[in-house]
Parts: sequence; structure tokens; C-alpha cells
Amino acid sequence: MEPVNVIGVGMTPFGIFEDSIIELAQNAAIEALTDSGTIESPIDHLIVGAQNPEEFTGQGHLSTLLADYVGVVPAGATRVETGPSSGSSAFESAVALVGAGMADLVLVIGVEKMSQVPRSTASKILARMLSYESEILYGATPTALAALITRRYMHDFGLTRDELSLIPVKAHKNGAKNPLAHFQKEVSVEKVSNSPIIAEPLRLYDCCATSDGAAAVVIASNKAVREHGLSDSAIKVLGIGHGTDYLAVQNRTSLTALNATRVAAKKAFSIAGVEPNKVDVCELHDAFSILELLNMEDIGFVEKGQAITAVKNGTTEVFGAMPVNPTGGLKARGHPTGATGVAQIRDIVLQLRGNAPKGLQIADPQIGLTHNIGGFGNNICVSIFGI
Amino acid sequence: MEPVNVIGVGMTPFGIFEDSIIELAQNAAIEALTDSGTIESPIDHLIVGAQNPEEFTGQGHLSTLLADYVGVVPAGATRVETGPSSGSSAFESAVALVGAGMADLVLVIGVEKMSQVPRSTASKILARMLSYESEILYGATPTALAALITRRYMHDFGLTRDELSLIPVKAHKNGAKNPLAHFQKEVSVEKVSNSPIIAEPLRLYDCCATSDGAAAVVIASNKAVREHGLSDSAIKVLGIGHGTDYLAVQNRTSLTALNATRVAAKKAFSIAGVEPNKVDVCELHDAFSILELLNMEDIGFVEKGQAITAVKNGTTEVFGAMPVNPTGGLKARGHPTGATGVAQIRDIVLQLRGNAPKGLQIADPQIGLTHNIGGFGNNICVSIFGI
Repeated sequence: MEPVNVIGVGMTPFGIFEDSIIELAQNAAIEALTDSGTIESPIDHLIVGAQNPEEFTGQGHLSTLLADYVGVVPAGATRVETGPSSGSSAFESAVALVGAGMADLVLVIGVEKMSQVPRSTASKILARMLSYESEILYGATPTALAALITRRYMHDFGLTRDELSLIPVKAHKNGAKNPLAHFQKEVSVEKVSNSPIIAEPLRLYDCCATSDGAAAVVIASNKAVREHGLSDSAIKVLGIGHGTDYLAVQNRTSLTALNATRVAAKKAFSIAGVEPNKVDVCELHDAFSILELLNMEDIGFVEKGQAITAVKNGTTEVFGAMPVNPTGGLKARGHPTGATGVAQIRDIVLQLRGNAPKGLQIADPQIGLTHNIGGFGNNICVSIFGI
Repeated sequence: MEPVNVIGVGMTPFGIFEDSIIELAQNAAIEALTDSGTIESPIDHLIVGAQNPEEFTGQGHLSTLLADYVGVVPAGATRVETGPSSGSSAFESAVALVGAGMADLVLVIGVEKMSQVPRSTASKILARMLSYESEILYGATPTALAALITRRYMHDFGLTRDELSLIPVKAHKNGAKNPLAHFQKEVSVEKVSNSPIIAEPLRLYDCCATSDGAAAVVIASNKAVREHGLSDSAIKVLGIGHGTDYLAVQNRTSLTALNATRVAAKKAFSIAGVEPNKVDVCELHDAFSILELLNMEDIGFVEKGQAITAVKNGTTEVFGAMPVNPTGGLKARGHPTGATGVAQIRDIVLQLRGNAPKGLQIADPQIGLTHNIGGFGNNICVSIFGI
């Protein structure tokens, strides 16, 4: 395929805002187009990643509308939806267009406005990602399934409650330095371990909140990079993998591993031609604390059951050997579902450029990775980037 | 880009059915996979085109769910949405994956189940494709805008009511021979011209109905075509174009031309390296009678204002010089929105294979074209196919 580069990034703050879904998308898009240096050039295609805009906001037809409202008409415009990995899947579709030579400049917007409906309605909308006949019918929710997995992981690998709390503690420590994060406040192990129970053994701080927000990136062919004189600042897309699993968790081969992550990571590493130990910084989908452990293991950073040792050793801290979620991750940066995958890419690009927020910049990273889950442990995208 | 081939097609009947959206998608998918000869091979990616499954049926998360329910796990799975052109855009995304070398075998499913909600609710959902502040707020509907365009076309080019009726008459004549069409009954000019007024001057037979249905295609790289010994039956994707326009009709340059069609067609012809007069058969988006005239003109088959002459001369009949919608089009085949674009591709592939239904097969076609509109005169895909 043709080489693909990320040449511009933008992001709104994540949190609870008055802005409409259109305004959020516009703000991120204009920042990314400005950052790319191509704001006056014709864009060939717009791809919008959004999970449930119709149900969260009443606003449908987002790709067609945003093509007009961000000023890329008459470019083709497409919305991509894969649940909470919609942003990453939108990015993948954009990479395919440039990779196939069907476009030279593509704008990708990930957006979600979740606060317009009551929290209980949002939960109901989000719960639809489960299997109706095997899960929803029995009252299962994504949080309940995450609790099930946590319990099993504790049983199999001896994880304790206070060890699990180290994950949201790190997330909040990093989020406190991220000016765009939803939660910019540190928390202690005691506070996490004693916070209200959501689904035993998961507590409040083990579960990401719902947020509003948008992120955008501009990607370009080598030809467009040359034409715009951007060869020095462009970040290379080294590989993308995308995998699914059986919908109902009960049909999967393991409770403590996500095969969709393994499939996606294996493919991404194979295309990129790098090994997991070459990754300098990563953003992983930590919608629940336990997922950060599973993700590290399934991607191949550590052996199964060893992730918590890495967390305890400080390996995953910003200045550790294998920094995970230096932005605060879904827990602290926030998780406006369709926006998350694009925000992860934006944050890794800033790391590779050396432009991460103060106190969060890894020393001289060469390779970064993003990992984004759609559905419960399903429809997962892994992308690898290099300078 | 890498060459891309269509190697399998499937389609359910279009109409009003008891089947769920999942069953419709499964039936079309299994037929396409069987037809392709690859049903026992691993599929690399699933792309699902669907406009509003959540609102029409309550079923979200369609790509993840169908990856399991049609048996392509652990393939990547993506849903694409561009309003009523979701099927064509899904196809475009699939072509990009194969064109970039990111996949060798991709299953594309277009599906919509519209009859689960009352017709008035469906209309409300569909009306969201218009501009809220410039159109919806003033009571405009897609049908009202089509009426506005029809009136202007009548004024500018002298089109009469009975001439306009020739378009649904031809659609129903063809649909009567299409065993999967929603409406398989011929109608007369008198019946069309005297049918109930929907939005003056549009009458009942000028407007497509809402339908349930699904269509699927399997696309493949040249490598996969060779490996499966399908070189003789594969249909080549020669070119795809995709264009948008300003959302509100009042902001566009013309009422009687769709610039998004012009942009999409120009790009598709340029990539394919063919001229409009080389197209032997086409499926155009005739959601309203007037659109068939605009489409013929904007694609470049005839000069502006001349389409009705071609219709009157019989040029667009199945055995005319330029057959348009030999399957009955959206009017008679039916328009389950997300399914339509994929159904059009399936029908053109059958034509190019020489396997169209009895009485609808064009003599020895070499090149076919599909044209699919998302939104009102917006987000339009044109695809060109060859043997």
C-alpha cells in the first residue's frame, strides 16, 4: 500500500459541555486542519467516527452535515460506527483510502456528545453492545461483565483490590497534568479502594465516566506531504490491525484474555514489522481498570498474568520503561465513545512529535501504539505509529 | 491501487417482511458467500452499510454482531453510514481496504428493516437528513424538496405531468419481471398521473416506498481471485467517485442539477478511463421520478434538459440504447435505504455476468454503472464495473 502519514491533530477538552455535537466536531476539525498546514487545500474525503449520535443527541446524517459545516464540500464524506472503537475504525477507513491511492488528504473526526441524555438513558444505549439473548435478557451490563472478568483474573493470578486501584491512581495522576482531560485531579489507592461499589469487585474509580468531546486528525499520502512541505513533521502510520470476537462473552475461549486484541495486535505488528518491545509509548482502552492489564498482556508487552507486576514496579508510569496512557486514558482523559480512538491517535502523535503536555512527554519516543475497544472486549483496533 | 473484483452477490426479496434485520443480513450474506465460492475461506473484513438500524429496529452495534452471526470472526468489522447511500459507501470502504492491500476478501452487507416502526415514524427518521435550521424548521420534507425541484425542472425544460409519469411506468414494467422486487405490477401513465397527490406536482407513484431487505457482495484482490480459481467469473471494479454538496438545498448553485452527482461521476469516469457513452447498463437512484432525469443529465448520459426525450424515445427501456434501472429501480425494486447501494451493485454484476432475470438481461453488456444518493441530493456515490 501507499505510505500514510498523520500531518495534523486537534482535540476539544473532554468533559460535560453546552456545545452541540456539531460545534465539538467543528472545533476539533478546524484545529487539526490548521495544525496540518492544509486548511486552504481541498480535502479529498471526510470520515466521521461516532457511535450513537442519533440516540445521544437527535442529530443524524453526521458525515453529510459535517462535510458542509467544516467546509470540505464537495469531498466524499462517510460515517463509520463500530461502537466505542468508532474513532479508530474511522481512522482505519481513512488509511485505506490513502493507502489505496483513492485520496491524498483525508480529515478524520471522532466525536460523541453523551451528556444530552440522562445518564441512565446513556447506559441503556451503551448496553446494546451486548448480546441480547445471552446477556441483556439476564440483566448483564458492560460493567457487570467487566466485574466478572476482574473476579476471574483475581482468582487466576492473585490480583488484589489495592493492586487494581493502582491503575486508576496512575490514570488520575497523568490526567491531572493533561489540560484537556475530563478529570484533572489525583486520587489515592485508599480513595479508589473505598469508593462506592458499582459491580463487585469494581468500584466507582474502576469505571470510566461518560463525556462529551471530539478529536480530529488529518492524514496524507507521501505526495501530499511533499507538496505541502511537511516531510519533517509527518508521523508515519506503520500498521493497523482490526479484530472481532464472538458477541456473547460466554462463547469466548477465555475470560481473562481478549482474542480480538490478540488478532488486531498481531496483524498491526506484522504489517509494521516491529515487535511489542519496540513500542515506546501507548494509549490503551481502559474503560474498566481490569482492561489495562488484559490489554498489556494481549498486545504482548508482558506475559499473561504479569501486567500487575509491571504496574507495581512503576514500569507503566510516564517515566517508566513502558509508559501506558500518559494522557490519563479513558478513565481520566474521558471517553466520549466515538472520539476516543481519534484522541488516542492525536495524543500518540503529540508524543512522537515531542509536544505532549508538560510532565507527560516521554523521552525521545520512536514508536507509539493505540488500542481501542468497540463492544465489550470486541471489535478492537490496534494502530502503530513511527517518526 | 490494487485491482478489485466482485466475486459473489446475494440479495433477499425487498418488501415488508417478518424477518429481523439480523435475519435479512444473514440471508443475503450467506447467498453472496456461497455464490463467491469462498464460503469456507477466512474473510478478512466485514463492512455493513445501514442507515438507521438503532432507530428503525432498536438493534445497534450491527457490524460487531453480524461478524459473529454471519460467521466471519475474528475478521475486522465496520459499519458505514451515509444515509440512503450507506450501501454504496460501505462498498467504497471495502474497495479501499482491498485496493490498499489491507485485505484480500471482504464481505459487504447492505441492510435496512424499515417496517418495524410506523410509516410516520420512519418518515420522521428519514427527514433528519435535511438541514434543521433551513428546511426542517419550515416543515420541509425530502418529498417537498423533490416537488420543488420537479416544478422548477418543468418550468425550465417544459416537462409535462404525463411525461414524468413515463418514469414510474418504466420502473414498474421492469419490476414486474424482477422476482425480488417490492412491486411486481405494471402501471399505466393514466394511473400514475391520477394517483393521489403527495406534494404537488408529485403523486403517489413518483415516490418510492419504504422496504425491508438486504443485499451482499464479496470483493476480492486479484491474488484471492487466482487462489480461488475465479478469474473467469470475477467482475472488475473500474472506478468509484464520491461527492457531497451543501446540506441545505437553498445554498446550492442549481435546483435542477445535483453537483454531488457531477463530482462523483467525473471522478469515477476519470479513474475508470471510460466515457459516459461507453456505459451499457446502469442503476440510478430514482427515489423520486424527477431524480432519474437529473441523474442521467448529471452523470453525462445526455445534455441538461434532454433526459425526458431519451425516456420518450424508449432509449432507457431494457432494450433501448441506454437502459436505466432494468431491475425496477428504487421505485419498483424497493428502497430499504442501507441495502439499496449494494443491491444496485448486485444487479449490475448479474447483468455483466449475463444472469439478469428473464426479460431484463441487456445484450452483451461490457460496462455497468451504479449511482446512489445519501441525504437529499447529497453524499452521492458512483461506481463503474466491467467484465
